[in-house]
Amino acid sequence: MEKQINEGLIEGRNPVIEAMRAGKPIDRLYILDGSNDGPVMTIKREAKKRDIYIKYVSKDRLDNMSATGTHQGVIAVSAAYEYSEMDDIFSLAQKRGEAPFVYILDGIEDPHNLGAIIRTANLAGAHGVIIPKDRAVGLTGTVARTSAGAINYTPVVRVTNISKTIAELKERGMWFVCADMQGDVMYDIDMTGSIGIVIGNEGDGVSRLVKNNCDFTASIPMKGDIDSLNASVAAGIIGYEVLRQRSYNGKNR
Amino acid sequence: MEKQINEGLIEGRNPVIEAMRAGKPIDRLYILDGSNDGPVMTIKREAKKRDIYIKYVSKDRLDNMSATGTHQGVIAVSAAYEYSEMDDIFSLAQKRGEAPFVYILDGIEDPHNLGAIIRTANLAGAHGVIIPKDRAVGLTGTVARTSAGAINYTPVVRVTNISKTIAELKERGMWFVCADMQGDVMYDIDMTGSIGIVIGNEGDGVSRLVKNNCDFTASIPMKGDIDSLNASVAAGIIGYEVLRQRSYNGKNR
Repeated sequence: MEKQINEGLIEGRNPVIEAMRAGKPIDRLYILDGSNDGPVMTIKREAKKRDIYIKYVSKDRLDNMSATGTHQGVIAVSAAYEYSEMDDIFSLAQKRGEAPFVYILDGIEDPHNLGAIIRTANLAGAHGVIIPKDRAVGLTGTVARTSAGAINYTPVVRVTNISKTIAELKERGMWFVCADMQGDVMYDIDMTGSIGIVIGNEGDGVSRLVKNNCDFTASIPMKGDIDSLNASVAAGIIGYEVLRQRSYNGKNR
Repeated sequence: MEKQINEGLIEGRNPVIEAMRAGKPIDRLYILDGSNDGPVMTIKREAKKRDIYIKYVSKDRLDNMSATGTHQGVIAVSAAYEYSEMDDIFSLAQKRGEAPFVYILDGIEDPHNLGAIIRTANLAGAHGVIIPKDRAVGLTGTVARTSAGAINYTPVVRVTNISKTIAELKERGMWFVCADMQGDVMYDIDMTGSIGIVIGNEGDGVSRLVKNNCDFTASIPMKGDIDSLNASVAAGIIGYEVLRQRSYNGKNR
């Protein structure tokens, strides 16, 4: 489910090369699997230089995506917004004199959820949002709109491998809390330090490998008849528990 | 913005009369403004008996809504789910041995927000959701889907006038907390008693009259650069603060 594929498509070899050379932000590239003639090699080289994620797909897939019917084996999805660097997150935390607080989204697919989470991250005092390159929605126009402007303030960083990123950020002193129904109730977990809150995919939750890399598992209490909250609502509830512990602990009833 | 108008339309005089007489749940009726011939009077009478909300609209409006082009001045929107009665909420609270906890939604228009709030209400331990008949989305198919099944468990009651309902529920011992940026921070408000949490419209917030009828105004702390949370995220954060105060107070760090 890549719901963003109809937004801002650039189709065909020359248009894609031109867009990259003009510095237009590209979210990802779809290239016909197995094609490696001259122009395609040029595109791959340019993409590599710019760290653009490439996905190799079938002709049927490209035909389905294409709005013009003239993709020539290459379709680029332009990003509505540019991604930030990991250091932007740490700089923001440092500038505010706060312990870093980030959201790590392990495969959010719905652009409305991603937009709402960026919006919440901004207001809950998080310093950034980390998303994976593959199997997740990127910074599309819908995400930008749903973020209600937060995308202009809160750094969104895209990484190749969430588990590897967690390992790297642990080296920098961060702790990771995975949001999952099987965990300890979130009120019992200290989230006042340098922290990453990991939110899973809408249907599947946090993947096993990522979960195994987290330090804690926190659950939101469930008092009802059904079994899960909407992903962006869950992100809001747990993010605000971080804020409560950091800023209102002891001051509240 | 009545986004549900394409869902489950019943068009034309006889189909509408038959649907009502068969007891099919009707969300609302659109009738051509000024029409009062025999069949239309019959429809109005039947609607009144069943307490169905009627909205008088122009021919253009009906033409725009119509899928068949043969509305004959009458279109009914069938409800995907039936509404509950106010007593269902109190019965549920009593059955669980809890002080009543309801959400009052002052004009939620987006079916995804309404569905997500019903889902959250179920899991946060609320006993019901109250929505207005006019200028708000009803229990459409999209709402049912987005509620992830919660609509089958959590009573949703529709009322004519939110302010009047608040006054009536105060008589039954309830207190009302309006979610608004100008209020005291929610952690400082005691929400452990019989409580109604009032959530406003996506764009306009809680209306002035409804706000004036509330006992308290509670704000969610905002640490960021933008000025408001998504309505369903805000409902989740404040609803879980009710749950925390009720069930985890003193037990948490």
